Amino acid sequence: MKLPTADFLHRLADAADRETAARFRQTLETSTKPKAGYRFDPVTEADREAELAMRALISAEFPDHSIIGEEYGITGSGVCQWVLDPIDGTRPYLLGIPVWGTLIGFCEQGRATAGMMSQPITRERFWAHRGESWLKTGNATASLRTSACAQLSDAALHTNSPEGVRRNPDVRFDILDDSVKMTRYGGECYAFAMLAAGHIDICVEYSLQPYDIVPLIPLIEAAGGVVTTFDGSRPENGGRIIASANKDLHAAAISVLMQGR
Amino acid sequence: MKLPTADFLHRLADAADRETAARFRQTLETSTKPKAGYRFDPVTEADREAELAMRALISAEFPDHSIIGEEYGITGSGVCQWVLDPIDGTRPYLLGIPVWGTLIGFCEQGRATAGMMSQPITRERFWAHRGESWLKTGNATASLRTSACAQLSDAALHTNSPEGVRRNPDVRFDILDDSVKMTRYGGECYAFAMLAAGHIDICVEYSLQPYDIVPLIPLIEAAGGVVTTFDGSRPENGGRIIASANKDLHAAAISVLMQGR
Repeated sequence: MKLPTADFLHRLADAADRETAARFRQTLETSTKPKAGYRFDPVTEADREAELAMRALISAEFPDHSIIGEEYGITGSGVCQWVLDPIDGTRPYLLGIPVWGTLIGFCEQGRATAGMMSQPITRERFWAHRGESWLKTGNATASLRTSACAQLSDAALHTNSPEGVRRNPDVRFDILDDSVKMTRYGGECYAFAMLAAGHIDICVEYSLQPYDIVPLIPLIEAAGGVVTTFDGSRPENGGRIIASANKDLHAAAISVLMQGR
Repeated sequence: MKLPTADFLHRLADAADRETAARFRQTLETSTKPKAGYRFDPVTEADREAELAMRALISAEFPDHSIIGEEYGITGSGVCQWVLDPIDGTRPYLLGIPVWGTLIGFCEQGRATAGMMSQPITRERFWAHRGESWLKTGNATASLRTSACAQLSDAALHTNSPEGVRRNPDVRFDILDDSVKMTRYGGECYAFAMLAAGHIDICVEYSLQPYDIVPLIPLIEAAGGVVTTFDGSRPENGGRIIASANKDLHAAAISVLMQGR
């Protein structure tokens, strides 16, 4: 079984960056996907072209791997699967705010084992490969480590949108919000990357697709973090997802979210 | 009366950038300011050193100008006043998310006439001087223009935190939210800069200090936008502030916010 190198992850990110960066802050036609969830779920030429560019490279290098992508669905089959979100955060992309990213994940038999988040405007690459997580900014590369935050009262909490909070009143986000040091909104995949990098302690999301989270799982886990569904199961299928800097904080956050204490 | 040049605005931003960029994503001592509003209102060495660096340059160049800064209050008096927020968005600064900025404003007899927002991680400078607004990214400089968005149903709306929405139930943000194409959170000063640049159409905030908004007023106005309090008054004193891409959109947004239609 031929597995991808870190260099190949960067080649995929390079290909996507060319499509996304060139169109950033340009006037783009947007269409709305008929997906459940938000009333406006935009997709642009940049999303489509970036996914096609990555698919072409993968098909040439790994013809027997399957691919699942946000814009073009599932192609192929096999124990090795690529999971692509060409622009995670199309809305901040359209609004000119560089907290979006290209997500590239790799699964072996349903388990996420390598991943990449590329942000070409800040010139940052976050990736995980063979059990280590890295950040490259310009020419400097550093290993990533989650925070040692041990208590909710010291934690920085992130969720993307209060819309998710409102739609899930059974989840005691309000109590978690009251329990932590600060809560921030609007960070998309960038917030998960900052959790891997040790700057955010807890991320909570309510309705992720597999391509929203699979590429970030190895990044978080190899940096020392924990990421699961709200009931503690593996996160590869998406849904309600919580990531934390460490095991103890994860248990404390889930307890508050699900039981209010 | 000796007035500042655009070059001097950039010298101030250079001085602040040195202090803020060097400490970004480093472990910083934070203290909480005893200000009304959020339960955790952090201030760091980066905020303090950046303000001191700018104050030193201003005092040397314009000894008769007064200065108001977030961290060190008001010094001096006179018809020319500098308005400094060394880090607008200390919380995203602490969380590693580059939507914070250094804000530098200049008022003549209480009216904001020049301003600068510097974001050193994305290497962007947004500034207004002599009635024109500019963005410099790396070595490229472009003039800024707000969007031509004419209808609420086409508009992108931004507010920093749902906490502000909850604390102001008399303001019909819920109806405005329902009336626009999309709503985003968490952008701090970066969202106002993106309004000047034509990518966001309406920004709503509930409790701004003068230093949160004065530096951004010339940027928005010179780009063709409108910025006032919710009752249509000049925005230099802060408080409840709304900025829009143009006059018609501004009137429509205020009508919904204040009267629900």
